[in-house]
Amino acid sequence: MSAQIGVTGLAVMGANLARNLARNGYTVALHNRSIEKTDTLLLKHGDDGEFIRTETLQELVDSLEKPRRVLIMVKAGKPVDSVIDQLAPLLEPGDIVIDGGNSHYEDTRRREAALSRQDLHFVGVGVSGGEEGALLGPSIMPGGSRESYDSLGPMLEKISAKYNGEPCCRWIGTDGAGHFVKMVHNGIEYADMQVIGEAFDLLRLGAGIEPADQAKIFTDWNSGTLSSFLIEITAEVLGHIDERTGRPFVDVVVDAAGQKGTGRWTVVSALELGSPTSGIAESVFARALSSQKEQRVLAQDILHGHEGSVDLPETFVEDVRLALYASKLVSYAQGIDMLTAAAKEYGWELKLDEIASLWRAGCIIRAELLDDIMKAYAEADTRPANLLLAPAFAEAIAGAVPAWRRVVATAVQLGIPVPVFSASLAYYDGLRRKRLPAALTQGLRDLFGAHTYNRVDTEGTFHTLWGEDKSEIEAVDTH
Amino acid sequence: MSAQIGVTGLAVMGANLARNLARNGYTVALHNRSIEKTDTLLLKHGDDGEFIRTETLQELVDSLEKPRRVLIMVKAGKPVDSVIDQLAPLLEPGDIVIDGGNSHYEDTRRREAALSRQDLHFVGVGVSGGEEGALLGPSIMPGGSRESYDSLGPMLEKISAKYNGEPCCRWIGTDGAGHFVKMVHNGIEYADMQVIGEAFDLLRLGAGIEPADQAKIFTDWNSGTLSSFLIEITAEVLGHIDERTGRPFVDVVVDAAGQKGTGRWTVVSALELGSPTSGIAESVFARALSSQKEQRVLAQDILHGHEGSVDLPETFVEDVRLALYASKLVSYAQGIDMLTAAAKEYGWELKLDEIASLWRAGCIIRAELLDDIMKAYAEADTRPANLLLAPAFAEAIAGAVPAWRRVVATAVQLGIPVPVFSASLAYYDGLRRKRLPAALTQGLRDLFGAHTYNRVDTEGTFHTLWGEDKSEIEAVDTH
Repeated sequence: MSAQIGVTGLAVMGANLARNLARNGYTVALHNRSIEKTDTLLLKHGDDGEFIRTETLQELVDSLEKPRRVLIMVKAGKPVDSVIDQLAPLLEPGDIVIDGGNSHYEDTRRREAALSRQDLHFVGVGVSGGEEGALLGPSIMPGGSRESYDSLGPMLEKISAKYNGEPCCRWIGTDGAGHFVKMVHNGIEYADMQVIGEAFDLLRLGAGIEPADQAKIFTDWNSGTLSSFLIEITAEVLGHIDERTGRPFVDVVVDAAGQKGTGRWTVVSALELGSPTSGIAESVFARALSSQKEQRVLAQDILHGHEGSVDLPETFVEDVRLALYASKLVSYAQGIDMLTAAAKEYGWELKLDEIASLWRAGCIIRAELLDDIMKAYAEADTRPANLLLAPAFAEAIAGAVPAWRRVVATAVQLGIPVPVFSASLAYYDGLRRKRLPAALTQGLRDLFGAHTYNRVDTEGTFHTLWGEDKSEIEAVDTH
Repeated sequence: MSAQIGVTGLAVMGANLARNLARNGYTVALHNRSIEKTDTLLLKHGDDGEFIRTETLQELVDSLEKPRRVLIMVKAGKPVDSVIDQLAPLLEPGDIVIDGGNSHYEDTRRREAALSRQDLHFVGVGVSGGEEGALLGPSIMPGGSRESYDSLGPMLEKISAKYNGEPCCRWIGTDGAGHFVKMVHNGIEYADMQVIGEAFDLLRLGAGIEPADQAKIFTDWNSGTLSSFLIEITAEVLGHIDERTGRPFVDVVVDAAGQKGTGRWTVVSALELGSPTSGIAESVFARALSSQKEQRVLAQDILHGHEGSVDLPETFVEDVRLALYASKLVSYAQGIDMLTAAAKEYGWELKLDEIASLWRAGCIIRAELLDDIMKAYAEADTRPANLLLAPAFAEAIAGAVPAWRRVVATAVQLGIPVPVFSASLAYYDGLRRKRLPAALTQGLRDLFGAHTYNRVDTEGTFHTLWGEDKSEIEAVDTH
């Protein structure tokens, strides 16, 4: 008997993907650097399906049907290169090497280029859904060659999450496209969590609503346009009482948020692409600031709030909901703008409707909203240049704008930091503005650095002789 | 006769630095890939001082006293490596290679390490002040070994800008420290220009003040705490009338701001260092958004403002001044926080008071404020953990807070995008906040990804068994 796929690296994510494959009827060859993990998996979950136990990479390779499919599930970075270096010499042209970890897409691009020179397919696959998703059905974002997907796709689609029966797995695009899209997913996840945090803060500090009552509000919100996994579990976390103290759980947790890097990667990539991803950036910075404990402790005693007084409107809770919704939409719009820019930069034909479709189930940011986003990009001739310009969303956000303005203005007066609510609103107002003060910036840059400027009334590049008679000359473009 | 320094690369910056050196009494050997530039310089400015004309790098090297000093003034990136590769074999141990371009500090670190293996000193020097500064006295930020500064420092100090007679040049720190500090300078410059743009927009769209009248306001502001080069030239740009149309110059310039990359680099570095540099990030994104012309044009017709009505207070202009000042302070605080984080990361002993001191003249961000920043960091035992916590600045910003809140709240209601004003205020309010909603973020991360959390009441790392009985277990830290 030979296996249809091999998995090397049997930590939780690898083990759960292997089990998911076996449960779906595939014969799975197992390999781990130390055999103990393999044996533990077989002992505990051997009856999930057909497994083949192997002790070396050579055994793993020998146990596979051709073309071989080997899924690497080791820590991102050097360990992936190390496994590839050992594995590649054992393989034959046409075999498929799959990296299902959280690798940086530039690494995936590099590895794909290297392995394709050996006639091997290298497929970077973004997998979202955490440990449970890996076992029960994750959202899967595979890159690599189209040809590799013909062989690999059906298996990945079978083990993926389903949304109304449709698999949450589509071929994303060549080389690093899958890992890129997964990275942006994670960036959006950062923003999603931060806007929830800002809403929580506003309801608590602004309106004095305790966590247990907020749990009910979030549960309520989960039945409307905000319906999503993260809103659902926010209700669960806010409703949880710490067993040790009897206090709300959220009050006994240290308020310093960790990072594993993909949010940061997203912003770095956005900067390189020239895509204004302020919501995700502010989310990453909010975590960074939360972790600067020493400065924060000192600042509490030194910095004055001088808060203004505000009469909260009757509609405050609903206002916060609308502000959260609008800010969330902006983060999605910015994330999708990054995808558009990346497609251009890297030559990927990203299908935005398909990407939105496979985020509808299995992954952390799964939300009803994504079904509407999918529909907004479904027809080539009505595809919007920006998500916010799709008729459905332009209308939805217009309905939220007055509340959004009230909420941000109130937060600002009450001294409650809402970095993503306000950054998103600034983006919205910037996007729709006829003239931005960037013209003044260009004037300043021309004055001190002769960086030149364009004119609104004629073609060409110009420079004003500021230090002389301030006449204007046509200039070589040195932007 | 031998030269005390050689300059290779005689485009405007290189030519002007060479002239500056010669005017200060140094004999300068000149080299350029094509001899025409060398001859043009000698023809036009040969009487600035003593120059030696050389046609090859070998001739350049031969013309120099030992230890040799060679200043490379070519385009950042590969051209620098190319010149180093040609130059290094011609040099002897102890010679000093200087890169005065806008190189990335990681490149400088790499080059310094490589040349030090050949017993050559490599000095990355940040030079700010544009073309005019290079000629008349720039702000100079040299990295490299302490030893190299003994030989090179006196020359650089002599040609640098002076603030009350003190040279705006100090040894910054080893390897890439000089270029790093120059990069952060440029990042702050981005924020400085953006907050000016936001003030301009508020005065124009909020209060209806035309550019010519704003020129007077900015001139007035330039005599107070905002006194700085950028405020001064803002008045000049706003007061300028376009000769072709008779309209305010700022209205005929296309409102799409260019970038040369150092602002972006600053934010990327801040992300890597975990330093929340939201003001600079929003400035970079504001330029990116301004350049997304296609989306903006479409958005103007589709997105609704639904602006609120606001009665502007009598104090609006003064409020805007205070908001600009406070936002500017935050950008400086964030930039300095990056320097602190970088010093730790790269093992640099950055002297923040000296860095502030050498930005007081010659460079684009020169401002009265920097003298106060210098003083805030002058004494080791009162050095603040964050600029805003220095007594003078804590007091100054406290005085600005009520106006700052009014201005941001007003902008938000009027639909005027003020991304840096509001990001800075959110940072200020986040920094001084006793509890941030990051605790909720940690709770969510623990629920969906078993990322664990810390407790406020006891040491250790914990995980709640969310899917089971929600009891809490002690966990291995997997942050």
